[in-house]
Amino acid sequence: MAIELYWGSGSPFAWRVMLTLEVKGLAYESKLLEFSKGEHKSANYLELNPRGKVPTLRDGDFVVYESLAIMSYLDRKYPTPPLFGATAEEAGLIWQAISECESYFAGAGDKVVRPLFFGKGLDKVDEIQQAAQAIRAELKTFEARLSTRNWLVGETISAADVAIFPMIQLILRAASKEAAKPFKLPWLPLAQFYPHIAKWCERIEALPNYQRTFPPHWKA
Amino acid sequence: MAIELYWGSGSPFAWRVMLTLEVKGLAYESKLLEFSKGEHKSANYLELNPRGKVPTLRDGDFVVYESLAIMSYLDRKYPTPPLFGATAEEAGLIWQAISECESYFAGAGDKVVRPLFFGKGLDKVDEIQQAAQAIRAELKTFEARLSTRNWLVGETISAADVAIFPMIQLILRAASKEAAKPFKLPWLPLAQFYPHIAKWCERIEALPNYQRTFPPHWKA
Repeated sequence: MAIELYWGSGSPFAWRVMLTLEVKGLAYESKLLEFSKGEHKSANYLELNPRGKVPTLRDGDFVVYESLAIMSYLDRKYPTPPLFGATAEEAGLIWQAISECESYFAGAGDKVVRPLFFGKGLDKVDEIQQAAQAIRAELKTFEARLSTRNWLVGETISAADVAIFPMIQLILRAASKEAAKPFKLPWLPLAQFYPHIAKWCERIEALPNYQRTFPPHWKA
Repeated sequence: MAIELYWGSGSPFAWRVMLTLEVKGLAYESKLLEFSKGEHKSANYLELNPRGKVPTLRDGDFVVYESLAIMSYLDRKYPTPPLFGATAEEAGLIWQAISECESYFAGAGDKVVRPLFFGKGLDKVDEIQQAAQAIRAELKTFEARLSTRNWLVGETISAADVAIFPMIQLILRAASKEAAKPFKLPWLPLAQFYPHIAKWCERIEALPNYQRTFPPHWKA
C-alpha cells in the first residue's frame, strides 16, 4: 500500500514532511485537504488525527501525525539518506537545531505571521515588533552558521534544514504582504539582508521535485 | 571523560535528561547551577550554551543542549535500553506523543505555572482558566491512554514517559501552591481525579535512583 500524506497548502509543518519524502525519493499519494472547506475537521479525517491538524501520514496500516514525528518515523523506516545524522553527535546537533527552531523561532514567527496573513491583531504593534526582534536574532544565528557551511548541521542536508526552511519561507511570505509595510520588517529582499540564508534556500529549491512541495496557493 | 550534566533544580527540561541518564544507567557528574545566583548566565556557562538555559550535557568534547536533543543524543550513543522505540512505528508514536506534549501541554502548563510560582500575572484570570482547560483536556488524554497500558507508548518506558512526566509534576506542584486555591484546579489529589496517571507516576517514581532526579528544592 502506498504512503498517503494528508496536508494543507501553506502549512509549514506539512511542507517539512513533503520535503522529507522528496529527499528520500519516496513516492506518496497526495491527499490535499482544503482548509477553507473545513476538510481537516471532517469526521473521516478526525479519525486519523483527532486534533484535526495537518500533516498526517498513513503508511499501510500505520498512521502518525505531528511533523517531527512523521519525519522521525520516515527516517527510521526508510533510512537512506539519513536525515537525523550518521552519528549520535550529529543526531544531537540536528535535534538541537530543531528544538531551538520550535522554542525560539516558530513561536515568534507565529506572532508575526498570523496578524499579517489574517489581519487579526494587527493593532498589537508592540507584540509584533517584539516578535520581529526575536525572529531577527534567530535569522542572524542561521546566517552566521551558513556563512561557513552549506547546511545547518553536518555536511549534507538534514532534518534541521528540512524543518527550518518552511518556517523561514512562511515569515518571508508574511513580510511580503501589504499589511507588513508599516512594520518595516528588515528581511526582504533576503539576498540583501541574509545572503547566506538566501543561498541556502537556493540549495533547497534546487532539490529534485522541490516544486511539488511548494504550497500551490502561493504560486498564484 | 565522564558525562557532565548542567542543570537547575525544578527545571522539567533538566529532569527529563536526568531520568534518561538513570534509565540508561549512565554515571554522570552533576553540575547544579543556582538560578538565584544567575549561574546559568555566567560567561563560562554561556560558552557552553549561548542561550543560558538548562540543561546542557557535555560528553567528552561533545556539548549539546535542549532537552530533547540531549535525549536523542544519549539514545543514539548509549542505545540500551532504547528510549525512542525498537521499531520505526514506535519511534513515530513516541515522537508524536512528545510533539503533542510540546505543542499542546507544555505551553498551557507554562501559562498556569508561571503565575502560580512567581506571582506575576495572577490577575489574568481568564487566561489562566483557559490554559487550565487545555491542561485538563491533555490530562484526560493521558488518563485514557494509561487506563489500558503501563506506559504512554509501547510496552516499556520510553522517551514519551520521560519527557512528559516532569511537565505533569510541574503543573501538580503549581496546583498545590497557596496561590492556586482561588482557581480550583481540579488536578489534586491526582489519584482521585486521574487514577491511571497517578499509578503511572508511581511506576516512574519506582525507577532505581529516581530520588536522585527529584528537584532538591522541592524536598524542603
